[in-house]
Amino acid sequence: MTAELFEKHEDLLKRAVAAVRSREFWNPYPESPRAYADGAPQAGEEAFADRLGKRFGIDQAAPVLSAGEENSPYGTDLGIGYPATPPPDLIRSATDAAAGWAGAAVEERIGVCLEILAELRNVSFEMAHAVMQTTGQPFLLAFQSGGSHALARGLEAVAQAYLAMRRMPRRTVKWEKPQGRRDPLQLEKRWLIRPRGIAVTLGSATSPNLNAYAGIFASLATGNSVIVKPDPTTILPLALLVETARRVLGEAGYSPDVVLLAVDQPGESTTEELITDPAVRIVDASGDPEVTEWAERNATQATVYTTKRAVNSVVLDAAKDLKGVIRELSVSLTMYSGQMATTPQNVFVPADGISAGEERASFDAIASGLASAVEDLLSDPQRAGDILGAIKVGDFEAGIAAAAAAGEVLLESRRVAHPNFAAARVVTPTIIRTDSSEREIFCQEFRGPVVFVVATSGTGESLELAGEAAAKSGSVTWLVYADDDVVIDRTIEAALHAGVSAVFNLPVGLYVNHPAPFSDYYVSGINPSGNTVQTDASFVSGRFSVVGISRST
Amino acid sequence: MTAELFEKHEDLLKRAVAAVRSREFWNPYPESPRAYADGAPQAGEEAFADRLGKRFGIDQAAPVLSAGEENSPYGTDLGIGYPATPPPDLIRSATDAAAGWAGAAVEERIGVCLEILAELRNVSFEMAHAVMQTTGQPFLLAFQSGGSHALARGLEAVAQAYLAMRRMPRRTVKWEKPQGRRDPLQLEKRWLIRPRGIAVTLGSATSPNLNAYAGIFASLATGNSVIVKPDPTTILPLALLVETARRVLGEAGYSPDVVLLAVDQPGESTTEELITDPAVRIVDASGDPEVTEWAERNATQATVYTTKRAVNSVVLDAAKDLKGVIRELSVSLTMYSGQMATTPQNVFVPADGISAGEERASFDAIASGLASAVEDLLSDPQRAGDILGAIKVGDFEAGIAAAAAAGEVLLESRRVAHPNFAAARVVTPTIIRTDSSEREIFCQEFRGPVVFVVATSGTGESLELAGEAAAKSGSVTWLVYADDDVVIDRTIEAALHAGVSAVFNLPVGLYVNHPAPFSDYYVSGINPSGNTVQTDASFVSGRFSVVGISRST
Repeated sequence: MTAELFEKHEDLLKRAVAAVRSREFWNPYPESPRAYADGAPQAGEEAFADRLGKRFGIDQAAPVLSAGEENSPYGTDLGIGYPATPPPDLIRSATDAAAGWAGAAVEERIGVCLEILAELRNVSFEMAHAVMQTTGQPFLLAFQSGGSHALARGLEAVAQAYLAMRRMPRRTVKWEKPQGRRDPLQLEKRWLIRPRGIAVTLGSATSPNLNAYAGIFASLATGNSVIVKPDPTTILPLALLVETARRVLGEAGYSPDVVLLAVDQPGESTTEELITDPAVRIVDASGDPEVTEWAERNATQATVYTTKRAVNSVVLDAAKDLKGVIRELSVSLTMYSGQMATTPQNVFVPADGISAGEERASFDAIASGLASAVEDLLSDPQRAGDILGAIKVGDFEAGIAAAAAAGEVLLESRRVAHPNFAAARVVTPTIIRTDSSEREIFCQEFRGPVVFVVATSGTGESLELAGEAAAKSGSVTWLVYADDDVVIDRTIEAALHAGVSAVFNLPVGLYVNHPAPFSDYYVSGINPSGNTVQTDASFVSGRFSVVGISRST
Repeated sequence: MTAELFEKHEDLLKRAVAAVRSREFWNPYPESPRAYADGAPQAGEEAFADRLGKRFGIDQAAPVLSAGEENSPYGTDLGIGYPATPPPDLIRSATDAAAGWAGAAVEERIGVCLEILAELRNVSFEMAHAVMQTTGQPFLLAFQSGGSHALARGLEAVAQAYLAMRRMPRRTVKWEKPQGRRDPLQLEKRWLIRPRGIAVTLGSATSPNLNAYAGIFASLATGNSVIVKPDPTTILPLALLVETARRVLGEAGYSPDVVLLAVDQPGESTTEELITDPAVRIVDASGDPEVTEWAERNATQATVYTTKRAVNSVVLDAAKDLKGVIRELSVSLTMYSGQMATTPQNVFVPADGISAGEERASFDAIASGLASAVEDLLSDPQRAGDILGAIKVGDFEAGIAAAAAAGEVLLESRRVAHPNFAAARVVTPTIIRTDSSEREIFCQEFRGPVVFVVATSGTGESLELAGEAAAKSGSVTWLVYADDDVVIDRTIEAALHAGVSAVFNLPVGLYVNHPAPFSDYYVSGINPSGNTVQTDASFVSGRFSVVGISRST
């Protein structure tokens, strides 16, 4: 049965392995909703609607149901009841299920993982609605981040795990130690892969799939049981993954409890109990810095992989097509209201302006141009909703107020009435003009619709401030517009030091908000944006161990 | 200069890379003292003698000298004064030195690492005396563990680090995202390797080189500065490594402060301050479980790699040549008085005996045979000294007393007068006969000359007890004598579950005490013997990160 699954997906795996090595463009899961089957959009929307107000359909043992603290920034009433299995029961079920899964051949596990991904691809529209409604993402972003991009991250992790496990000799090796003129001493040796133990994934409220799939699939492929604990306010997207994984596992002859869902009663949290259990040897945590940093400091019995937070920067030094750059920035800065860890927060511009093609553009022109471009972009409520989505994070008004105090407000936030969801929290960003004297403020992370345009003494200071933000609050990407090779080299040096990916002169139609699966690495582990790299060899190779068996011949 | 070092050692590197992949026998550093240059033994002994009572010859900035708490179990007066550089100064020096080293090409760093290994090989005899006198190891073991085997572990780590870094594309990659009928979006991408930060290695009192070289060379090869902090009672072996590394680094044009020595004033410890410094991102800790477990729990800003402790087991189920097995065991069990983490402590034998060739051997015959064999082996004081070495661990008498209370003493410990070192602490082992009712005792680690021969209800119980010891106190190896395939398969299953390497029917002349570099993995990370695997991809790949640089074409 499961050997068939490997064969079924072997070509995909081979191409994924080639892609993680070459790091050229590749993504087998289409980004465009139009590339999917004709009836899929409607079927997905109906499947989502059919979940609301009901018991979630997995057969996981639990004493009670719980809706957690799940909420929708679009104001949709979710009311889904999930099994609320207490940590000791989760650990016991995961442990019972572990032996069969750990004992499966590498190819069998890989086949099951690839089948789960294929089945998740088939529910991309249902997943998109689930992600949209729970996180507040706009629909297209939800479709891509919950489907195409997340699936690609999962596949990337499976490919890296496969590569890492294949690096062990798979056959028995003859080991011969010379003994001078006497016969050599001989042993037959082989090496068996052993998973580390139970893995726990803690999900993020705003980006549940994209940040979690790599860890979940890396742990599964290497033989660990996985307990998936979504953020209490955003449960459904990862619950759908658990449902699909359990079904595929069961059909392939494994215990569905290889993948379990953890949901708390409202107002309670078992996260600390769960992730410090001695049987838990792997923790993947993304999102809420309080939770992820607690995991780093306290789950010391486990290897902890985190993606936590970021203050990303745009550095303007020169732009041939400044209008085009400002237009692209207006989208990038406002996409999902700055609630993604890849969205820029700070735009650094020299106070004496930059070269813009044949002309020179003043700081004032750039700052006010950006404010106008954002205002124009969001003037139509439908388009505003399609770009901004709705606000998931709770304390954004306080953030806007604190940010506004740090300079001159070029554009004030305003509430937008969403054409389809009356109760949706749609809010345009506040754009603040400031300078390095307010570095204490803008080097902090504002999760929500806040953009700083910072006047600097030159690109040297821009890089210094971007570096300071990275060192203090983490940073994933710098988006740089420059054409002078000296400036570019100096920026690369600074990016390397800060542990931040740098993108120069991004072409129109690409957004720094979307790291490319199979090509870009996400988070460096160098600055506080996280302690790991999604997805390199270090992200997968510590999820399994190897046990040597030697035998006299 | 350093490109020359890579070329000089490139053939060795290629062979090392092939060896870590094939895992067949290979070790380019001879185990036999006779394979080295004619004058080397005497020159090494003199060089060691010349160190005693003097200032240690490295030019590292320090306000005062300190001899730490260094002592010799052979009673030799060491009195060497090392630079006692306080942690803040160490961190500052390491940080200042880091940029040049991090910025070096991969091949340059690899070349320097291989040159350091070559230079250490040239001082193998001096190192052997340093290891012997500080740890209490017998000379031949000190020569192998401080030279040949440790160098091979270092080279293995360099090869794995090289492989891991070479897995990134080294050239610029053209990334093209199709856009239907429009022109594809294009970026040129490349990926730069960035070390994680400062690495600290905490050395072991009894096995300073063997446990430390892999981590030190893995960190160096991947571009990190390394602060080496030997155990306060065993400083000289790792100080010699620091001295050699600093000289080679300086000659190759790098700051010698890429490798620094940390030594405390007697009675003080700066270990906690040092390893929790925010700039320290990698900690390798071996030895003292209190220190290594403190590091795991508290150095949460770093990735911590530990090798801690072990209770290893011998499982007797059947032996064609029982006499031969008992003779080999008598050596393995007594080598360096059980102070290596690879020495067996417990011998499990079914109470109703085992099949021994044509006959059946009773439990009593095996237990008393083992006691007699050990007594005979150690009856000659010279040979006793050559096998037992001297006792480094402090509390061994209490351990012997506690062990003796757990059963019938078959052989009592006695003090042996070492023919060459009157004050040497040479003590023969206590051998205790017991059964599973005393599992609480023999599942603990006794560091020192204690052996339990445990009567079990059969090999099933033997494996259960060996597994219990592994789960409670960590275990690195099981040495198993068996010929029934069902028993062998069941043992493999148990070993896999316990995360312990299993060796069946080891041929005469090989000892389970010596894991083979390039072939055996040391520690699995599954049980409390440590949290890592020396040396697989996971041991090296988290020591560097990767930063992507993308640029519009």
